[in-house]
Amino acid sequence: MVTGVSTTGYNRAAELLTLARQMCEPVLRESVGSLPEPLRRMAGYHFGWWDVTGAPATGDPGKSLRAAIVIAASTATGARPATAVHAAAAVELVHNFSLIHDDVMDADPVRRGRATIWKVWGTADAILLGAALHALAIPVLVTGMPKTVLDDALVRLAAAVIEMCRGQHEDCSFETRRTVSVEQYLRMAEGKTGALMGSAGALGALCAGADEATVAAMDRFGRQLGLAFQFADDLIGIWGDPAVTGKPAGNDLARRKRSLPVVAALASGTDAAVELAQLYDSDIPMSPADIGRAMDLVEAAGGRRSAQQYADQKMAEAIGVLRDRGRAGDLIALADVVAHRNR
Amino acid sequence: MVTGVSTTGYNRAAELLTLARQMCEPVLRESVGSLPEPLRRMAGYHFGWWDVTGAPATGDPGKSLRAAIVIAASTATGARPATAVHAAAAVELVHNFSLIHDDVMDADPVRRGRATIWKVWGTADAILLGAALHALAIPVLVTGMPKTVLDDALVRLAAAVIEMCRGQHEDCSFETRRTVSVEQYLRMAEGKTGALMGSAGALGALCAGADEATVAAMDRFGRQLGLAFQFADDLIGIWGDPAVTGKPAGNDLARRKRSLPVVAALASGTDAAVELAQLYDSDIPMSPADIGRAMDLVEAAGGRRSAQQYADQKMAEAIGVLRDRGRAGDLIALADVVAHRNR
Repeated sequence: MVTGVSTTGYNRAAELLTLARQMCEPVLRESVGSLPEPLRRMAGYHFGWWDVTGAPATGDPGKSLRAAIVIAASTATGARPATAVHAAAAVELVHNFSLIHDDVMDADPVRRGRATIWKVWGTADAILLGAALHALAIPVLVTGMPKTVLDDALVRLAAAVIEMCRGQHEDCSFETRRTVSVEQYLRMAEGKTGALMGSAGALGALCAGADEATVAAMDRFGRQLGLAFQFADDLIGIWGDPAVTGKPAGNDLARRKRSLPVVAALASGTDAAVELAQLYDSDIPMSPADIGRAMDLVEAAGGRRSAQQYADQKMAEAIGVLRDRGRAGDLIALADVVAHRNR
Repeated sequence: MVTGVSTTGYNRAAELLTLARQMCEPVLRESVGSLPEPLRRMAGYHFGWWDVTGAPATGDPGKSLRAAIVIAASTATGARPATAVHAAAAVELVHNFSLIHDDVMDADPVRRGRATIWKVWGTADAILLGAALHALAIPVLVTGMPKTVLDDALVRLAAAVIEMCRGQHEDCSFETRRTVSVEQYLRMAEGKTGALMGSAGALGALCAGADEATVAAMDRFGRQLGLAFQFADDLIGIWGDPAVTGKPAGNDLARRKRSLPVVAALASGTDAAVELAQLYDSDIPMSPADIGRAMDLVEAAGGRRSAQQYADQKMAEAIGVLRDRGRAGDLIALADVVAHRNR
């Protein structure tokens, strides 16, 4: 990794994530509370506040990484954390709308250790809840953003949604393609994960009244960090510790997912790539032995090293954007925790 | 019907719909043109501009009723039509996003005489295109609304989306319910169809710089008109002329849809209601004779008359809202065409 990670950095990042979550939660609860039933109850379940019946629960509300980026980008450009809370909540609403829709498209039955919305309430309600959370982000921004930068924030968030849709389309299309180039993969990831984290950085800077160049820099920081986050995610999807991730070892390989290590391995022109392609082109479910073999092949073909290099490079680019290092400590702490995450 | 319809009124309404479509189209084309591929191409296909390959086509772009309401509400409160064009285009984007999602949920294979988006590109892309059009409405409003009323317009449009989601949820839930009360039906229709038409009226008035009471009145006009529109739609879904609608006679009955005439009939406590309930509770596909029988039963149980009365009542409420009749001629012409539509 690019930056050495210190215990202090980790602790600070954990603090920031907790702070972002705690600050956003009242805004999210009020906003979700304005939804008509049963959308309100479904949303509260999704955020981990309630069980399916609406009774209080203590589910995992998610990492709040995007909210933390908004707040850290805002404080890095001179504002108090409270200034950016509504922007952070709006970004989280958009993020969660996209998760709920993605779970439908990917037919994922579990998120944050609980049944997904479509799994509990069906596909139609999951599509509707996603659209409702998307809509909710608007009044949250209108209520909470400084008026002078509201238009810019609204347009940036809408543009991020459109890029996310493009990225998710590409990700879905990879499932049925026999070849995906590394360039195609990087473009997909920039839409799917980079765009919203970029807008998180930009919105934070806007809340602080930053100039155009700083807003653009914070967009770039978030975007590169998002890519590093995605590549780290891809590495965990293959080599993550099942005890930590809660998913079987080699999970992405078992699903024949074309994540970055696999895409890079398949593009390597090595013998291992040829054998890996055979495993990926087959329709037969992978046995544990196949998964172990695929894992070795991705590594032998240089896919693991390559994905790690891309992650390091994006992280270096993200941190390189931060000119005023003195104030950017929180952003660097978040970057560290993204680069070294293990789940 | 409440108001006598004149040929002049019809012609004026047809003119207004054409004008609204022609005025919005450049805004919609520019907006859709900003989408990344393949979302751009899918959107252009949906609007009837292009075929599936992106080559020019002359598909049915839809009625543009909501756009016409925005523009007529704006001119009725003193503005030039051009003032409200962006608001009209934003409302059309939201309407079309909801159509694309609804077609997924309802598994409808055809819209405006062409295969639906999910039918051509699959469910995932239809969900994504819907979300992208939803997002596109934001920059269109930000670009084109007068700054003083932008926040109000954004919040109203978002609230309409949330009500639509609630209404669509209820409509879907009716499919699996054995009993639906008329009250439940009316509440569903107000969300599904009334809310967006209400916001169309309100946004038009906002564009004209109208006072709060006028904006509220235009919201109410659009909302009641939307309900009348929905009830007329329900009547056409059973008694529409197949040569005009392009759908088989008794289409909604064949699908055992719980539309207003059916809901009212089932709630009538008549012998016809009992027999109709038996037909509706069965799993056996309806024969042409069953459909004919169901049609007679709905009529005998008073469902047709009741739905017509509700339509008349909502239309009277819509027109009753218009205090300054001198300037409201265009709105009344639109109401006339809604009340007397046959497809």
